Amino acid sequence: MPTIVVDVMPKAELLDPQGKAVTGAFARLGVSDFSAVRIGKRFELTVDGEVTDGVLAEARRIADEILSNSVIEDVVGIEVVE
Amino acid sequence: MPTIVVDVMPKAELLDPQGKAVTGAFARLGVSDFSAVRIGKRFELTVDGEVTDGVLAEARRIADEILSNSVIEDVVGIEVVE
Repeated sequence: MPTIVVDVMPKAELLDPQGKAVTGAFARLGVSDFSAVRIGKRFELTVDGEVTDGVLAEARRIADEILSNSVIEDVVGIEVVE
Repeated sequence: MPTIVVDVMPKAELLDPQGKAVTGAFARLGVSDFSAVRIGKRFELTVDGEVTDGVLAEARRIADEILSNSVIEDVVGIEVVE
């Protein structure tokens, strides 16, 4: 069955304390290749049947209105898998 | 600066209550195109300098050992962006 993947990340201007905590853990654990970590969400929506333009439009709408909070988050990607 | 994106999802055999809650909300809101929702995490690791094979290997290691819990989660993707 086709899946639509929606990626949501905290806005760049926000602090993202979860990501900061992981960045701090990297320093303590001796991992030095990465200077910053940001943590967002990945939604996998299972589509019943075919991915039509209407289904994609609906996915875009719910990504903006239900799956993300536009005050603090950006929808950074919507793609069809399989 | 290049970014390595690591995607982590709950294992298929686990319930994923967050995803179930969103699926239930879809039904109440009249969204009928999607039969299931699963919610995972998306990590964006900022790389200082170039993405060498060593940096990618390190990203794979921390994806398995630090960013995901292999008892309940799978690393479903590691890709370089930009």
